[in-house]
Amino acid sequence: MHKLLASFFVLFLTSLPAWSQPLQVRSPNGLLTVTLTNDGGELLYNVTRFGQPLLNASRLGLRLNDGISLADELTISGFDTRSVDETWEQVWGEKRFVRNHFNELRVTLDTQDETPRRLTVVFRVFDDGFGFRYEVPAQAHLGAFHILDELSEFALPEDPTAWWIGAYQWNRYEYLYEESALSAAADTLHTPLTMETKNGLFLSIHEAALNDYASMTLARQDDNVLKADLVPWSDGVKVRTASPMVSPWRTVQIADNAGDLITSYLILNLNEPNRLADTSWIEPGKYIGIWWEMHLGLATWGSGPTHGATTEKTRRYIDFAAAHGFDGVLVEGWNVGWDGDWIKNGGKFQFTTPYPGFDIDALSQYALDKGTRLIGHHETAGNVMNYEAQMEDAFAYYQARGVRAVKTGYVAFGRQIERLDEQGAIQRETHHGQFMVEHFQRVVDAAARHQIMINAHEPIKPTGLRRTYPNMMTREAARGQEYNSPQGGGNGPAHTVVLPFTRLLAGPMDFTPGIFQLEAADDEPENHVPTTLAGQLALYVTLYSPLHMAADLPRNYDEQPDAFQFILDVPTNWQDTEVLHAEIGDYLTVVRKDWDSDDWYLGSATDEEGRLLRAPLHFLDPGLPYVADVYHDTAIANWETNPLGFARTRVLVDQTTTLTLRLAPGGGAAIRFRPASAEERSDAALPRCNERQRCDADFRPVTQ
Amino acid sequence: MHKLLASFFVLFLTSLPAWSQPLQVRSPNGLLTVTLTNDGGELLYNVTRFGQPLLNASRLGLRLNDGISLADELTISGFDTRSVDETWEQVWGEKRFVRNHFNELRVTLDTQDETPRRLTVVFRVFDDGFGFRYEVPAQAHLGAFHILDELSEFALPEDPTAWWIGAYQWNRYEYLYEESALSAAADTLHTPLTMETKNGLFLSIHEAALNDYASMTLARQDDNVLKADLVPWSDGVKVRTASPMVSPWRTVQIADNAGDLITSYLILNLNEPNRLADTSWIEPGKYIGIWWEMHLGLATWGSGPTHGATTEKTRRYIDFAAAHGFDGVLVEGWNVGWDGDWIKNGGKFQFTTPYPGFDIDALSQYALDKGTRLIGHHETAGNVMNYEAQMEDAFAYYQARGVRAVKTGYVAFGRQIERLDEQGAIQRETHHGQFMVEHFQRVVDAAARHQIMINAHEPIKPTGLRRTYPNMMTREAARGQEYNSPQGGGNGPAHTVVLPFTRLLAGPMDFTPGIFQLEAADDEPENHVPTTLAGQLALYVTLYSPLHMAADLPRNYDEQPDAFQFILDVPTNWQDTEVLHAEIGDYLTVVRKDWDSDDWYLGSATDEEGRLLRAPLHFLDPGLPYVADVYHDTAIANWETNPLGFARTRVLVDQTTTLTLRLAPGGGAAIRFRPASAEERSDAALPRCNERQRCDADFRPVTQ
Repeated sequence: MHKLLASFFVLFLTSLPAWSQPLQVRSPNGLLTVTLTNDGGELLYNVTRFGQPLLNASRLGLRLNDGISLADELTISGFDTRSVDETWEQVWGEKRFVRNHFNELRVTLDTQDETPRRLTVVFRVFDDGFGFRYEVPAQAHLGAFHILDELSEFALPEDPTAWWIGAYQWNRYEYLYEESALSAAADTLHTPLTMETKNGLFLSIHEAALNDYASMTLARQDDNVLKADLVPWSDGVKVRTASPMVSPWRTVQIADNAGDLITSYLILNLNEPNRLADTSWIEPGKYIGIWWEMHLGLATWGSGPTHGATTEKTRRYIDFAAAHGFDGVLVEGWNVGWDGDWIKNGGKFQFTTPYPGFDIDALSQYALDKGTRLIGHHETAGNVMNYEAQMEDAFAYYQARGVRAVKTGYVAFGRQIERLDEQGAIQRETHHGQFMVEHFQRVVDAAARHQIMINAHEPIKPTGLRRTYPNMMTREAARGQEYNSPQGGGNGPAHTVVLPFTRLLAGPMDFTPGIFQLEAADDEPENHVPTTLAGQLALYVTLYSPLHMAADLPRNYDEQPDAFQFILDVPTNWQDTEVLHAEIGDYLTVVRKDWDSDDWYLGSATDEEGRLLRAPLHFLDPGLPYVADVYHDTAIANWETNPLGFARTRVLVDQTTTLTLRLAPGGGAAIRFRPASAEERSDAALPRCNERQRCDADFRPVTQ
Repeated sequence: MHKLLASFFVLFLTSLPAWSQPLQVRSPNGLLTVTLTNDGGELLYNVTRFGQPLLNASRLGLRLNDGISLADELTISGFDTRSVDETWEQVWGEKRFVRNHFNELRVTLDTQDETPRRLTVVFRVFDDGFGFRYEVPAQAHLGAFHILDELSEFALPEDPTAWWIGAYQWNRYEYLYEESALSAAADTLHTPLTMETKNGLFLSIHEAALNDYASMTLARQDDNVLKADLVPWSDGVKVRTASPMVSPWRTVQIADNAGDLITSYLILNLNEPNRLADTSWIEPGKYIGIWWEMHLGLATWGSGPTHGATTEKTRRYIDFAAAHGFDGVLVEGWNVGWDGDWIKNGGKFQFTTPYPGFDIDALSQYALDKGTRLIGHHETAGNVMNYEAQMEDAFAYYQARGVRAVKTGYVAFGRQIERLDEQGAIQRETHHGQFMVEHFQRVVDAAARHQIMINAHEPIKPTGLRRTYPNMMTREAARGQEYNSPQGGGNGPAHTVVLPFTRLLAGPMDFTPGIFQLEAADDEPENHVPTTLAGQLALYVTLYSPLHMAADLPRNYDEQPDAFQFILDVPTNWQDTEVLHAEIGDYLTVVRKDWDSDDWYLGSATDEEGRLLRAPLHFLDPGLPYVADVYHDTAIANWETNPLGFARTRVLVDQTTTLTLRLAPGGGAAIRFRPASAEERSDAALPRCNERQRCDADFRPVTQ
């Protein structure tokens, strides 16, 4: 242990309990150092990287009810250190084997009054960032308690550029990210909050393992200090809890280029391992659904002549899914409750009562017979009391019909969540406070009991709980494709090259890509999906989700079979992920290796600027020729004027190839790489860009 | 030709000479389009890329003496188009074979008055940018003439970020680059002017083939318009010339990432081919010299007890050069003229008269006998009349003594250049007007007659003339290492990661890297070389120059033999160049392949921020194991506090390896890759990072 101490920790502690000297813990590579200090009884930490300030002295601690402070006049009663280097396997994911490599410092602190209370602060320092959390152990003088304030700060030494959305807005996380100086951002910000320093260092602040606690937003203080701002209960209390308690981890991911944020697994590493004994029923996959047509105004959720969820239409969707190998068919609006002002009257959803025109028993069996499944839908309109009363039955109902995945929804248009308090009175809670954090977990737990995967819309943000509860597959918690519908207001081309560096650092997103009808309607020239056709395909790789929708209508896929093939081929479960190009808000190229084969897939996307990007294929296996099936923009493609300027080209490549990706304004590129067959290797008609070749965007060798 | 037209040009011209329709020319890849229009008699061009505005309508034309306008009320009398795709070989360079691939539009325009004058405007559009120039053909009504103004504009559609130095400052180009919005830059700016748009597109404006013309600066107009501002003669005339005349090319290089600017050869392509019949005597190389000790205050240029240029000391330098294989020894201060206020009295330099204590005949022979050479020095103090009177003799004097390279100097501390006009009166000209442009060319021509290579300090900026006159090797024209001397004021760590994206886009620079004595003196804590030891080594690769100095004192190299080995190994002539990482002002990684072997070299440098950068070695030959000799910062290196935190590690790698570069604050990394010998391949003691391995900064395999 002395050797470990010498290697990983620098402990200047000289005497207990005076604690006048700092405690330090370093990252495994020695470059990141967290120092805890006690400044006149205040508990502070600061962080350096390469010996330079990354965070200035930042407060730690909790303030409880009854004037109890776990923040001031604390004395140290002990500390522990340990070092972990392990590699664990995901049940599913964007990377199969994840290395968890950190040094930990655990400091036990006691108040100095007559009824001493104890707080433990734990720091884990990784090469790619750090996390800390509070633990309140079981103790004599602290049983049940309320947290009135968490003091955690992140004191940035300068004013960085931030990509941010403001917290406490009526539409939760569903806003476009703004890019500005942090000092010009809203007063309170959602996490993940991603920032770039003036010297080009990237930071992202978030939290891991948010459970039984309020979610954290960040309040801007003076001098670039961000302070934890916990979303309160309706009475102002932040957290209702009791010892023993652990808080979520407060996380700071750090990277020299933005792409390294995407391949940081720090948040997953700070979650607990899988708790589900049987995961055989959890399967990533792709689905279609009766959904986009409602956004197009071609059908309604509610009953009547335009009702989308009819038996006949669902049967056609099942046929289409079965013909093309989709894993499921989502049907929204099949259960009673959608008529009238369903958002206002949201209490009325009946989760096990189909509309008369929807023969769920026949359809679920039809789907199973054809080798696919229905995907369930639980719209709650934010009426959690109504939902929780039916939830167990609702999941059992689906399970009995072979349903394996359920999309949940909490559309509330700003209305808060009603709950009954202990006195039977109705209290109105926010969507992001402790009450809803716990509700969302109850849903995941109930779903697991019925072998059902959750795809949560209008949910709490992800914090890596998918590791612990791997039926928590994917979610919304951001502005998805639906905003690109004719009345949606639009996301613009840059949004999908901001999301991977912000919201998606927290976890997968059900963005619902794959819209092929891209040309603007005559009466809505400003409202259309802001990418080219190849750009839609790229999203299946750039935006990670274990469940991905092919969101457009089957007839639109029938019209573009060449492009559709990529959606059919692309997996949603990956052995490995690597980022080739990354500029936040500008462009992104990601490559991922299929979990189940030797195929690699590339997705590259840009904002409204066209790009030529060189992509060396160093990730491929050496010595092996691959066929690259390239789905790409033409030279005159443009999301506004020519979104269908699309071509598909096959070319023989290998690990020594450098391809040139031509991304049109609002465009993209999608590539499947698969080992070439013997016939393909000797097929002289197949264009070649192998053997150290660099090729231009039209796959012609670049001479010298 | 019809096919060519269809492919490369879009010509809407319908009738001559009315010219109411635009003329267009596209880049070979079709993505860049230049359109010429005639707006009420004004000649304009605009540029789109991917169909989006890159430059708005921008003026073209010249205003001459006697009220002659080659800008207004022009009619088109003809046009020509052609397409060129050729690959040419450099005599020496950063890339041996250069592809020259463009489409050209040549438009002939005539004034409409009674004595018509003719102007030809030529555009060449490449995939990586474009250039245009004016040609005034021989004609009846225009013989000798003066250019009073060149109207060329570059009308940016928005306010980009610019890295700039102001023009018309007393110290020429020797300033630190500032980064700001273009709108916040100085009124007049030097070129190359490099900019980044809000969408992350990079542009750099410069000129190519500056000969017999005034050099161009850029004046900021309203609305982000930059206008050519030619440096005038003392009487205000911009250019004195006669038909036939061609202007320099005005160039705009365009790249999706900053590294692609570095590997753009557009400026070389717009220069004329080599005009020297015999180039056998032109050889890139490395040199040492009696120079840095003067900057350290340890010796003087002038005579007396501290005189640097003594026979004995020079002999010791020759011994050191010969022992280590340097190609030359520069000696400054050996010739009469350095005593007293030599800058003020600059007329007095005698270029063929050594000080008594400097036995140039014996020393030059001693150097030749030992297999090296003296490197000559011509300090002029800006007294061009004195220099030109002696120039031919001065070069002959060196040639007779085996000297092959001469460093020239024009230190003038703001004084302008005196010349005699036709009436015998003294006129004072700027360093960057036509008079000095022509003077610098006279020097290159005279040197060539004596088989001498030029390394010009305080010169005109490079514009690619090295292609045409390959004895014009390298130059200063920027703030070099000398500013890091104790009284130099310092460059700061960021300067060398700005230079490659700005000044060095124009051509090589004699930065004089390789200072090993890096710790600050006690009495000058703020003034020291702003890199680590590995950071100094990286400059030999990141800053391209065919002549590179090992600038420190021999005794400082003797103390660091491990680090010195890189300077001994690194070539100064390259088959190929590739950029791995590039963020202007933040960091840069360049790899280059030796002209004469299969070795590759990597240089990586950062500003004051430490970095971890992943470097896939895809540029190496596949299947071949290499020994990587890595010169790197330790984990606790820091340019301010621990600049000698340095280590050298050898590791076996191959094309499938990904190394992690750890760059300390102000640090760097330098690597030589050479094919491994059979013994090395089987040497189990040699650390391995090959066979698809990704290694950390300490060369340990990263498990998953």
